[in-house]
Amino acid sequence: MTHKKQVGLAPGTLVYTGPERHHDISLTLIDYRGEHFDERTIAPDDASAALLAGEATSWLDISGIHDVALVDTLGGHLDLHKLVLEDIVHPSQRPKLDVYDDASLYIVVRMLSVESGAGSGRNAADLRIASEQISLILTRTGVISFQELPGDVFEPVRNRLRAGKGIIRNEGSDYLAYALLDTVVDHYFHVIEYVGDRIDALEADVLARPTTETLARINRYKREVLGLRKSVWPLREVLSGLDRTDSGLISERTKTYLRDVYDHTIQVVDMLETYRDLLAGLTDLYMSTVSLKMNEVMQVLTIVGSIFIPLTFVAGIYGMNFDFMPELHWKYGYFMAWGLMATITAGLFFFFRRKKWI
Amino acid sequence: MTHKKQVGLAPGTLVYTGPERHHDISLTLIDYRGEHFDERTIAPDDASAALLAGEATSWLDISGIHDVALVDTLGGHLDLHKLVLEDIVHPSQRPKLDVYDDASLYIVVRMLSVESGAGSGRNAADLRIASEQISLILTRTGVISFQELPGDVFEPVRNRLRAGKGIIRNEGSDYLAYALLDTVVDHYFHVIEYVGDRIDALEADVLARPTTETLARINRYKREVLGLRKSVWPLREVLSGLDRTDSGLISERTKTYLRDVYDHTIQVVDMLETYRDLLAGLTDLYMSTVSLKMNEVMQVLTIVGSIFIPLTFVAGIYGMNFDFMPELHWKYGYFMAWGLMATITAGLFFFFRRKKWI
Amino acid sequence: MTHKKQVGLAPGTLVYTGPERHHDISLTLIDYRGEHFDERTIAPDDASAALLAGEATSWLDISGIHDVALVDTLGGHLDLHKLVLEDIVHPSQRPKLDVYDDASLYIVVRMLSVESGAGSGRNAADLRIASEQISLILTRTGVISFQELPGDVFEPVRNRLRAGKGIIRNEGSDYLAYALLDTVVDHYFHVIEYVGDRIDALEADVLARPTTETLARINRYKREVLGLRKSVWPLREVLSGLDRTDSGLISERTKTYLRDVYDHTIQVVDMLETYRDLLAGLTDLYMSTVSLKMNEVMQVLTIVGSIFIPLTFVAGIYGMNFDFMPELHWKYGYFMAWGLMATITAGLFFFFRRKKWI
Amino acid sequence: MTHKKQVGLAPGTLVYTGPERHHDISLTLIDYRGEHFDERTIAPDDASAALLAGEATSWLDISGIHDVALVDTLGGHLDLHKLVLEDIVHPSQRPKLDVYDDASLYIVVRMLSVESGAGSGRNAADLRIASEQISLILTRTGVISFQELPGDVFEPVRNRLRAGKGIIRNEGSDYLAYALLDTVVDHYFHVIEYVGDRIDALEADVLARPTTETLARINRYKREVLGLRKSVWPLREVLSGLDRTDSGLISERTKTYLRDVYDHTIQVVDMLETYRDLLAGLTDLYMSTVSLKMNEVMQVLTIVGSIFIPLTFVAGIYGMNFDFMPELHWKYGYFMAWGLMATITAGLFFFFRRKKWI
Amino acid sequence: MTHKKQVGLAPGTLVYTGPERHHDISLTLIDYRGEHFDERTIAPDDASAALLAGEATSWLDISGIHDVALVDTLGGHLDLHKLVLEDIVHPSQRPKLDVYDDASLYIVVRMLSVESGAGSGRNAADLRIASEQISLILTRTGVISFQELPGDVFEPVRNRLRAGKGIIRNEGSDYLAYALLDTVVDHYFHVIEYVGDRIDALEADVLARPTTETLARINRYKREVLGLRKSVWPLREVLSGLDRTDSGLISERTKTYLRDVYDHTIQVVDMLETYRDLLAGLTDLYMSTVSLKMNEVMQVLTIVGSIFIPLTFVAGIYGMNFDFMPELHWKYGYFMAWGLMATITAGLFFFFRRKKWI
Repeated sequence: MTHKKQVGLAPGTLVYTGPERHHDISLTLIDYRGEHFDERTIAPDDASAALLAGEATSWLDISGIHDVALVDTLGGHLDLHKLVLEDIVHPSQRPKLDVYDDASLYIVVRMLSVESGAGSGRNAADLRIASEQISLILTRTGVISFQELPGDVFEPVRNRLRAGKGIIRNEGSDYLAYALLDTVVDHYFHVIEYVGDRIDALEADVLARPTTETLARINRYKREVLGLRKSVWPLREVLSGLDRTDSGLISERTKTYLRDVYDHTIQVVDMLETYRDLLAGLTDLYMSTVSLKMNEVMQVLTIVGSIFIPLTFVAGIYGMNFDFMPELHWKYGYFMAWGLMATITAGLFFFFRRKKWI
Repeated sequence: MTHKKQVGLAPGTLVYTGPERHHDISLTLIDYRGEHFDERTIAPDDASAALLAGEATSWLDISGIHDVALVDTLGGHLDLHKLVLEDIVHPSQRPKLDVYDDASLYIVVRMLSVESGAGSGRNAADLRIASEQISLILTRTGVISFQELPGDVFEPVRNRLRAGKGIIRNEGSDYLAYALLDTVVDHYFHVIEYVGDRIDALEADVLARPTTETLARINRYKREVLGLRKSVWPLREVLSGLDRTDSGLISERTKTYLRDVYDHTIQVVDMLETYRDLLAGLTDLYMSTVSLKMNEVMQVLTIVGSIFIPLTFVAGIYGMNFDFMPELHWKYGYFMAWGLMATITAGLFFFFRRKKWI
Repeated sequence: MTHKKQVGLAPGTLVYTGPERHHDISLTLIDYRGEHFDERTIAPDDASAALLAGEATSWLDISGIHDVALVDTLGGHLDLHKLVLEDIVHPSQRPKLDVYDDASLYIVVRMLSVESGAGSGRNAADLRIASEQISLILTRTGVISFQELPGDVFEPVRNRLRAGKGIIRNEGSDYLAYALLDTVVDHYFHVIEYVGDRIDALEADVLARPTTETLARINRYKREVLGLRKSVWPLREVLSGLDRTDSGLISERTKTYLRDVYDHTIQVVDMLETYRDLLAGLTDLYMSTVSLKMNEVMQVLTIVGSIFIPLTFVAGIYGMNFDFMPELHWKYGYFMAWGLMATITAGLFFFFRRKKWI
Repeated sequence: MTHKKQVGLAPGTLVYTGPERHHDISLTLIDYRGEHFDERTIAPDDASAALLAGEATSWLDISGIHDVALVDTLGGHLDLHKLVLEDIVHPSQRPKLDVYDDASLYIVVRMLSVESGAGSGRNAADLRIASEQISLILTRTGVISFQELPGDVFEPVRNRLRAGKGIIRNEGSDYLAYALLDTVVDHYFHVIEYVGDRIDALEADVLARPTTETLARINRYKREVLGLRKSVWPLREVLSGLDRTDSGLISERTKTYLRDVYDHTIQVVDMLETYRDLLAGLTDLYMSTVSLKMNEVMQVLTIVGSIFIPLTFVAGIYGMNFDFMPELHWKYGYFMAWGLMATITAGLFFFFRRKKWI
Repeated sequence: MTHKKQVGLAPGTLVYTGPERHHDISLTLIDYRGEHFDERTIAPDDASAALLAGEATSWLDISGIHDVALVDTLGGHLDLHKLVLEDIVHPSQRPKLDVYDDASLYIVVRMLSVESGAGSGRNAADLRIASEQISLILTRTGVISFQELPGDVFEPVRNRLRAGKGIIRNEGSDYLAYALLDTVVDHYFHVIEYVGDRIDALEADVLARPTTETLARINRYKREVLGLRKSVWPLREVLSGLDRTDSGLISERTKTYLRDVYDHTIQVVDMLETYRDLLAGLTDLYMSTVSLKMNEVMQVLTIVGSIFIPLTFVAGIYGMNFDFMPELHWKYGYFMAWGLMATITAGLFFFFRRKKWI
């Protein structure tokens, strides 16, 4: 999350603050009601007219927020509050629900997805999770969604709309907003599963070859999981806020469905907390693996040293040059020395065996 | 907890997401009121008729949720909300209480039991606790329970119903729901006791032979205890939710009993927290055991090295080949060298004794 | 806390679940009002009649709960709720306040005391704190108290009643209940003081001779202090619950006194938390003591090794058998070698001195 | 905090439980209103009369609570609740606000001060903070303050009263109580500054010469800071309780001032928490310093050992007595051996240099 | 945060407690309403008259609070509460909102900025963040701002006022206060970014060359981040307090904008918590780096020792002086000894290779 807005600008001044982007911005409008279904790409200037066009429920999906002039024009056509526009072009918002008037709700939610790019470089083994800001504006007649990039997780919703499957074509804009939120949250489970797999791989690494890089990786994973938690946790408040809202924009029936999304969100947060505990446990495991390796190193030194230092001493004794050293002249003196050394070795071997070091 | 629902499906689309299962699904219906008692296996199509059959209280128990068509049919017969059906076939719910209308309550609770399978493989010493989702639907005339697998902890309740023991035959469906919840929670204590025994065994392992595997095991136990806590903790809210509910489905008398179950739940959570503390302590104990073993290793090296390195030096001195070395020609030179070495050894021995290293 | 109730028993079925006990159960009844005072042992069958006997305030004290038949009979005579009886014979309750009807309050509190038995065996140095469940039933005309064992901390209350000291003889049953609770909480301070003494002794042990057993002991103390906290903490809720109760069973005057007990309870919890911090600090202290001992061991090895390994090398040089080694034939060669070795020793000695290792 | 009240005494029985004290108890009465000011020492029996004497605001300050008879007499004269008297003579209360009736408030606050005594003995470097219990009784006509010892921090308030400075002479008893509380809290900042200085000194010690004593000291500081926090934290509740009180004893004007004291209390608590974090960091720093010292020790051993053990081996080779060892007979054999050893030494030196160990 | 107010002074006595400062205090007044705009420096005595001058909205900015006489005079002219004046000249306040009457709000907020001074000395690598107290007094007709030092972050607001950009010239004093708060919070993001950069640099240091100083630095960073958190966290309460205020001083329109500032504050706090986690991870990383370095040291010693100690033993054997040692007289005895030593070396080399130590 970076925030590069120039300090002190008037609140109405739109400045895009996300990463640099140059793709074309596309506007797609879907109109539906019962049997009626219409999907088309429209020009920004037609947006307002299209949305107000009558009985159908409209979903206007805008892919790209880096062209602030376009967003500004759209905002003007759609009569959006200046602060809503500002939030839309600052793609580092926490999930939130803003109520500016009785006629519309402004919802920010974060779409998470596993990045497809192959890993390379120093952080190749890191979690590669893309987080995109989705701004939803819910009015009585439709939903306007702003995405940062083309490509999204909403295709199943479009397919349901196209196919007329389920009850979606017969429900209003609130149900559409629910369907979008539900899809976003369902997608979290994919991300969660991916994170779980990476953590398992990381645990294997910790046990096999712990390096400082491994610990740095544990730390980066922790931070990433924390970041995910921050993307998901406030969504609970958003959903319970939608449940409590009495603006009439959301029907009791849809609220029932939103409570289901709420339950799923809690499950996601639960699993993220489990991951956090797992990662804390990995730090301990890492420290212990390093300690045990040290133990192993020391044991080798201790065993080798404890056996050969006394033996060398024995050899040193009989390397002395005293005039009078009777053993040197014994017939079996040399073999006696070997016997003495063998005895010492056996004794120490037995000692280490008992200590379970060998 | 996994969640494999395909992203973006319409909420009404039932997809079973638990582990693959193939056993037959059985439906058992128990009708009772005062002296009246009837227990029989029924076909799915008779379920609705059976439940609405009149004055008796009915308990319809369904073992198996992997046949979504069956669940869907049942749901249709029993007029259950689509989201309830979805939750029933997603066996990864947290305990929860959903109120969809005034006529019924939907309760999810997790039945825990010690897995009977003998341990083998890498995680043989792990906690083997099975967690099964129990969905209860409480209506004015009966209780419908969905279980994932045949075999449950409800046999004592059935026996009480069969025997007409206690007040159960004279109470309504709310008391039956209480009896089921009470049995589930009572069974938690068995699981808790099992966990306690395993932790004691683990502590013995830590003290006797700490390996990295031991620490990994502590971590897995921690995770498991955390998982248990997550299965039990939300039950508190469910029970206090039942206590606060004013739908008229639950009598004041039964609420008194539910408060008793609530107390037991708190006891379970208390004990799980004690276990968590125990396991945190085990990590410390493990680290300390490893440290002490290291100390022991180093002491052996230090003692052997400190005694024999100086002795070897003495031997080295008298192994020098200087032309003029008077000691070499002394009559008792050799014995003097031994005496010197004995003195050094005694001194160091005394030093180590004082340090309490020997 | 163990809980051995058979799973699924009907709530009315009384089964004693505490440790096995065989002592006789005694019932003592004290009647008083102003000048009137009467203390006698009674038979279970007379309990009900005695309690309802008129104007006096009655205190019926029952020592022993392992005879469930007796408790059941008593419960019948006194018209107690089945769940109250169940809780009374399950001596593992957390402190709690149950209100079953307007005529009586059911209070559970835990009496703590230092066990008198002399320590022996592996855990001899452990905290020896006995925890006994006290169940109080407060009605408008009296208090019934159930204890697990004969012998209690209530003797001072009895003495005040006998002596007619203070205002106790002129107050009602609520004041009596207060006096009992106050006595229990006052006794906590004795236990707290004992725990503090043991922790001081443990700290001395940690500094003097840290072994793995010491750390295991710290862990056991932590667990014990945690257990104490769990016995005391819920009492706060009980006392504030009594303060909020509007059943008319407790007068405003007595509530003032109960708030005083509440303050004492907070003090106890405060001190237990201080102990918890102390014990956490002891773990650090232990780890550090072990580390420092290791440092000391390594320093000895380093000093001995660093001095004698170079000296042995010097001796080794002059033990070589080259044909041409001029030093060997110098007149003062041998003394020169000693001089060289003395110089090396002095240099290293000076180095270690500067490092403060010697 | 100790609590030596005999268990089970009637609540009205006063027993002093603080440390043994023998100084004389003095009572000072200050009467003031506008221009009127009168300060005198009075006898206990005159206290009641003095306080009720008329229009002036009175401040009765009592230095010493170990004479329970005196406190009892005073309590009788002043019509104080038995429990208030009990709290006054048990100088281990947490800060609290008790409202016994509409006519008076009972406030307990702890006066902290740096002990003047010079340090000696084992804990000489410990924090030396004295904590004294101040009991304030605020009535409509005056304030009664009980202190444990003569000497206090209230002299500036007396001076302001004597000088007639500020608005204090024109305000009522609530403002006087505020002035006393404000002075106590202002004094906390002195203590806080002293603690900060000691922690800085401790950090220097940790870096310079870490011993087990140093860690024990960190632990004692932690405990002390925790103790301070416990003396200050509940004061927040006292002050917000005073702000919420609607007894009419405290005017809105004075409440504004009390909120200022509340802000200061929060600042003190904030700083204590900063200290707690500092001390936790010191534990890490200590552990690390010890580890680094160990590293240093091991590096010396490793460098000396790694250089001289191979050299000694070379010397050993040429000390062998084989009949046929050509090098021994080479003309420059001896110098070749030296050259070999110099090469080995240089290689290892270069290796250690690269490792940055030398 | 230091607090040097003399203990026990009357609340009305103003004493400046910040660091010593001598710069001149300047007062700048900006008047504006629609097209009207006037900016001028004024004398303290004109302040009151200027502020009350009529229809325009006024912003009086005072740079410097160390001249208490001036502040006192100003306070008198502007009719500010004594406690407000006291807080203004004690520049160690936490952010807070004080409501003294219905006509004005007193807001304290902390302006953070990166210190420009070049680093030198022991703590050169520390975070250099300056924290300045900004006191805002919001009345219906204007805003008075007190700063500690000349130079601030408000220049963009002045420029917007001068240029008549945005809606600021048409809004009242509440919008001006919002604009100032927004600017302060926007500036936090700069500081946050700076802190993030320093933490990255610190992580690189930890990995490259961990010394005790590095750990001390981690600790200082932790403290600094904690300090930042304490400067920002209470601002949330201030902003939600402004949102809840019903004094009529703040219009609903402005409240919408304030909620936006609230969201930004939460983002800042979120990032500070991420930094706290990062720094906690750095401590682990540091400890691990030190451990791994130790491992490396020990491995070198172990490898060198384990190879050469046995070899030296072999050389020692053949340096013995026994009369009868057949190997010494073998033709290839010497080469056999070398072969034996080569074999030992190869075996150990292979062993260490397998252990991955070489």
